[in-house]
Amino acid sequence: MPAKLRINKLVVIGVGLIGGSFALALKKARMVRQVIGVGRSRKNLQIALRRGVIDRAETDIARAVADADLVLIGAPVGQMPGIFARMAPVLSPATVITDAGSTKQDVIVAARRHLGACFPQFVPAHPIAGTENSGAGAAFPELFRDRNLILVPQPETRAAATRLVRAAWLACGARIVRLEAAEHDEIFGAVSHLPHVVAFALVNHLARHPDARRLLGFSGGGLRDTVRIAGSSPEMWRDICIANRAALVPLVDGYISELETARAALAAGDGDALEALFSSAQRARARWLVRGK
Amino acid sequence: MPAKLRINKLVVIGVGLIGGSFALALKKARMVRQVIGVGRSRKNLQIALRRGVIDRAETDIARAVADADLVLIGAPVGQMPGIFARMAPVLSPATVITDAGSTKQDVIVAARRHLGACFPQFVPAHPIAGTENSGAGAAFPELFRDRNLILVPQPETRAAATRLVRAAWLACGARIVRLEAAEHDEIFGAVSHLPHVVAFALVNHLARHPDARRLLGFSGGGLRDTVRIAGSSPEMWRDICIANRAALVPLVDGYISELETARAALAAGDGDALEALFSSAQRARARWLVRGK
Repeated sequence: MPAKLRINKLVVIGVGLIGGSFALALKKARMVRQVIGVGRSRKNLQIALRRGVIDRAETDIARAVADADLVLIGAPVGQMPGIFARMAPVLSPATVITDAGSTKQDVIVAARRHLGACFPQFVPAHPIAGTENSGAGAAFPELFRDRNLILVPQPETRAAATRLVRAAWLACGARIVRLEAAEHDEIFGAVSHLPHVVAFALVNHLARHPDARRLLGFSGGGLRDTVRIAGSSPEMWRDICIANRAALVPLVDGYISELETARAALAAGDGDALEALFSSAQRARARWLVRGK
Repeated sequence: MPAKLRINKLVVIGVGLIGGSFALALKKARMVRQVIGVGRSRKNLQIALRRGVIDRAETDIARAVADADLVLIGAPVGQMPGIFARMAPVLSPATVITDAGSTKQDVIVAARRHLGACFPQFVPAHPIAGTENSGAGAAFPELFRDRNLILVPQPETRAAATRLVRAAWLACGARIVRLEAAEHDEIFGAVSHLPHVVAFALVNHLARHPDARRLLGFSGGGLRDTVRIAGSSPEMWRDICIANRAALVPLVDGYISELETARAALAAGDGDALEALFSSAQRARARWLVRGK
């Protein structure tokens, strides 16, 4: 490992599943000397300290980022403008900043606006990993192994900054993929944000049933898998969905149309039409979605 | 085990995941002497023979059910009227018939109509188990262990017939639950049939994207779990959804309304409303749906 890729001071803002796992993976790879965790929840930071995810907890962003080599922002995307604004006045020109936000166009707009002259030190990124659990207690160093890390460097982004962020994620075991920000938001609106809306809405609909407790007591593995992601953090997903609503609203509309097509076939008792819909879905899943974890 | 609960001849009509696993479980429990499999697919019956799921294959229902002690109909519910009609003329008064259909009102109507005087020998049932795989190759004897078996005996159903079916499912490791037919269809319309429609529609919507192959290449475990059940048999689910459409259409409508509520919050950029929806779903899932398998 080249000497320049050793990180003396890593600051993780938002020590959740993603930020915490990033810290643990870099520690395991012996790529980082010291990890400072910044967060809103004292209890979560205590868990992170106790589990060795971070070495020191800090509540003040400006104090934490002084002389950092690398800052990873793992907070919900709705908090990023405020975080950029707070760090901008004190950033050293040698500090590289990256993020793990699930949307990229809005984060880049916020970074460009609030980081100002430091914007070329910022490398937008998004690791495609997660579980339905959140918080430092859920973090583990293997989370990113063989997962995609989407890198979205901008024309102004310094090459050396991109290299450092790339090296850190490679050390976590991730595969690096470059995308344009708009392309990223369209893709993940479809394959990630829409499925979350679908799952949250399905649980809500069933929970509104007058006999919900009894009803859900009869559910099997099918429903449980279908709504697993409805266990995800409401705040995080609020931020993602609001940030990416330009891509997401048409996706929800298209999905509602698809349901209305199925509903029409059902109401008409049209078994052939319904079977055609189910068959095309079954084939598409087999072709594109059945793979190892 | 009382002597009367030994089954000399079991006939399984539709040797798929359910029918095949029922046969394997009863063989493992040494409760059955001989299993005859009836099916439309010669290839599937060959697999069932090779795996020891059945001892003999038969294509003619009337010939197969002669002197059977127990007949399990594991075929898609749309085929049941025809199956009842074919067996009715040759049924011995000593033969007990049961089914594994995912809907109950339509199956009971069909049985009452086509079995005629033999209707009291029929015990409507529904095992709540399954995977996204189908066919005799997917069958395994532990499929029903600790799963619910819904028993829906009718006023005419002979007590001895119900006792035999109950004992067979207990030997498979299932838990017996009694429900009314209408109650059954409402409950499973909500917790099983609706989630299948939701999953099939989600895959179809994503597969219609002009860049679907690339898009789905970026999917993670969240989408894969959400649409796992879209791998289920299109024919089976066509029959279930058509049979239960009276309960299912209003459930799809309610689900579309729930999505439209989320869509309105998104379009308005109303983060508070969206977070309230996501939070209530997350809490309901945690309260009612997080359990062991």
